[in-house]
Amino acid sequence: MSAQSRLTDLSADELAAFRAEQQTAYDTLAGSGLKLDLTRGKPSAAQLDLSNGLLDLPKGVHDASGTDTRNYGGLQGISELRQIFAELLWVEPAQLVAGGNSSLTMMKDTLVDLMLFGGVDSPGPWSAQEKVRFICPVPGYDRHHTLLDSLGIEMLAVPMNDDGPDVDAVAALVKDDPTVNGMWIVPTYANPAGAVCSQEVAAALVAMPTAAPDFKILWDNAYALHHLTADEVKSADILSLASAAGHPHRPILFASTSKITFAGAGVAFLAASTEQVAWYLKHLGEGAIGPDKVNQLRHAQFFGDADGVRAHMARHREIIAPKFAEVQRILTDRLGGTGVATWTDPKGGYFVSLDVVPGTAARVVQLAKDAGIALTPAGASFPYGVDPQDTNIRLAPTFPALPEVTAAMEAVATCVLLAAAEKLSS
Amino acid sequence: MSAQSRLTDLSADELAAFRAEQQTAYDTLAGSGLKLDLTRGKPSAAQLDLSNGLLDLPKGVHDASGTDTRNYGGLQGISELRQIFAELLWVEPAQLVAGGNSSLTMMKDTLVDLMLFGGVDSPGPWSAQEKVRFICPVPGYDRHHTLLDSLGIEMLAVPMNDDGPDVDAVAALVKDDPTVNGMWIVPTYANPAGAVCSQEVAAALVAMPTAAPDFKILWDNAYALHHLTADEVKSADILSLASAAGHPHRPILFASTSKITFAGAGVAFLAASTEQVAWYLKHLGEGAIGPDKVNQLRHAQFFGDADGVRAHMARHREIIAPKFAEVQRILTDRLGGTGVATWTDPKGGYFVSLDVVPGTAARVVQLAKDAGIALTPAGASFPYGVDPQDTNIRLAPTFPALPEVTAAMEAVATCVLLAAAEKLSS
Repeated sequence: MSAQSRLTDLSADELAAFRAEQQTAYDTLAGSGLKLDLTRGKPSAAQLDLSNGLLDLPKGVHDASGTDTRNYGGLQGISELRQIFAELLWVEPAQLVAGGNSSLTMMKDTLVDLMLFGGVDSPGPWSAQEKVRFICPVPGYDRHHTLLDSLGIEMLAVPMNDDGPDVDAVAALVKDDPTVNGMWIVPTYANPAGAVCSQEVAAALVAMPTAAPDFKILWDNAYALHHLTADEVKSADILSLASAAGHPHRPILFASTSKITFAGAGVAFLAASTEQVAWYLKHLGEGAIGPDKVNQLRHAQFFGDADGVRAHMARHREIIAPKFAEVQRILTDRLGGTGVATWTDPKGGYFVSLDVVPGTAARVVQLAKDAGIALTPAGASFPYGVDPQDTNIRLAPTFPALPEVTAAMEAVATCVLLAAAEKLSS
Repeated sequence: MSAQSRLTDLSADELAAFRAEQQTAYDTLAGSGLKLDLTRGKPSAAQLDLSNGLLDLPKGVHDASGTDTRNYGGLQGISELRQIFAELLWVEPAQLVAGGNSSLTMMKDTLVDLMLFGGVDSPGPWSAQEKVRFICPVPGYDRHHTLLDSLGIEMLAVPMNDDGPDVDAVAALVKDDPTVNGMWIVPTYANPAGAVCSQEVAAALVAMPTAAPDFKILWDNAYALHHLTADEVKSADILSLASAAGHPHRPILFASTSKITFAGAGVAFLAASTEQVAWYLKHLGEGAIGPDKVNQLRHAQFFGDADGVRAHMARHREIIAPKFAEVQRILTDRLGGTGVATWTDPKGGYFVSLDVVPGTAARVVQLAKDAGIALTPAGASFPYGVDPQDTNIRLAPTFPALPEVTAAMEAVATCVLLAAAEKLSS
């Protein structure tokens, strides 16, 4: 019997036979001592090797302005690196801050500052409100949710469509409720579904009326340059759109080189309106003297210019595109036509989002775990870690080597089919 | 007339002559186009050069545990670097966190966490209290004060004695007032006076009864290894003392390599009780995936072991001790016996604390500025930037080259004498 039959079309006997077949396949799998990991969006060693030139840099210690990068100071980051990434992120260098090794930390700092002090357009600190709420397009990035939850910010889920967050759902939430203070967006090749926020959606989000006068869009452009095909999408120019719409302080953009150079030793960026950059730097300066400018100089010399970054990303693509293709091949071969799964085919980013039979995602992850394949916990992409449909699984194929991706995905397919057969026969 | 006469012993005519003499000297100074800076405790280029070996490191990218330092993770920092600094700071490696490039940021994160979440022994978040107060030994470190002020924490000054904070003054403040939640100490070669907190004072501070059940001592051991003489003091082992006194969670220790390797590209450390380290890492992990482990590996390889750090600090001493000696020589030559100034002769650290005629510190700084010598603003070492006596000036001689230290200090002496003569004749 082929796995390509729709499982729901099977008779009870056929389903029982199918389930037994999958159980046998799974038992073989579980006995084969696999130890594979598809959990996190981490670059592989081969990708990291692309940036080993950094290890011999910088040559010289002074930046273009003559500043000794080894010493204190320079809170906004060195200008030559900001110029390169300003071009790539379509912002002005003056609107861009180059920071430490983590854009997540810049997001946390931003949220903490909003909570403790309020923003440039806030009536007061968010923490003085009885409640603070944030809109989270789902599925989304688990660390965004953890961060909000840690700060006591309530999360409101809206659907993430193929062209970005569901604008109508967002607009309805923000219209009358001043405690809805902001939203997340991963605009380019979103984590985990790969969607790209269209110009139209971006324009609508910066223009929509909000009851909160200081509504913030945290625009986490983590995958702005992380194309998997020659069809390289360009992110919406959110700062210009917001400015044109009369809400210049609404968006705050984040990016980093974590998945460009070294995941743990890159440079993170924040961009916003001039006033908002000044606000961010003021609070940053209350607890910091300056970023690691030596590492910034190292990066500026390594890339040379924006084209250097683009060429570097093409080398990443050569390494990871085959892994994504392998995921597609196996999902199609094994699950295509079965009617028990759908999945994304992203044109960039780090993830494939797999939807299995509702009510079986946790079971699939458990089956995989018992067979030695670590998957991101079911529900991880949803606020509070709860997927109301128990249907979504995030697959991250970049870190394992290609043969491991093959083995892991074959195993995942078996787990999906077994869980589906179990569910349908129950 | 010699400057060695006590100015208060002079007759009115003698004082007028003395003042005229100083005014002439000052006018010459002001006309000589100086541009010198004694403001901040920054290492000089020659000191930074001592660590240029870092620029060719690391060799290899895996730490001792086999972890690829280039990738994400490892929130507590790599173990080989923690081992080196655990030995130097007299703590257990498990109690030590190696972070990013700024201990000030670790202090801010700690205070923000205490405000938003409360500590391991707190009844609730500090921000839920009507008021939060902090004890600041004065003169102290301006950035400590700025940080507290930014968070709305009220500052209470106590005297900084030669053996550390005035224990009786501290004990009186903390005894009955549960809103006094903590205090700063720079225990070794304190900024700016150079005092060293004695074992007895440290023991008293960790043992004293406090109305706040979660009283914190933020023990900023920024200069633990920064000796200027062969008489190398050893900081009190604050974590063990606190544990023995039954208050294991009271102290949180901070340190960094900012004034050991590169001021802007070093590694910062935090040490505390095991539970408190877990608490810190939990909140850190809500907004960070890991520190720059490549830079940590770079440092571990550069030093090799704790003795490597000690040998490195001896090379710093060779560069900066002559600058401190020059400050002493000029202050003694020019101000000794005049009765208008006293100053510290620190055995380590980065500063000399100069007390001038009360009511003239701001005038001295202004005179110096007008003559092209930048001094730290008068009052900078006091909470809210206000020195109630207007008497203290912080001198930072490490950054300028030796001839500049000479020129700047000669100018400072002239300014002190002129301001004193003005004051005494008014």
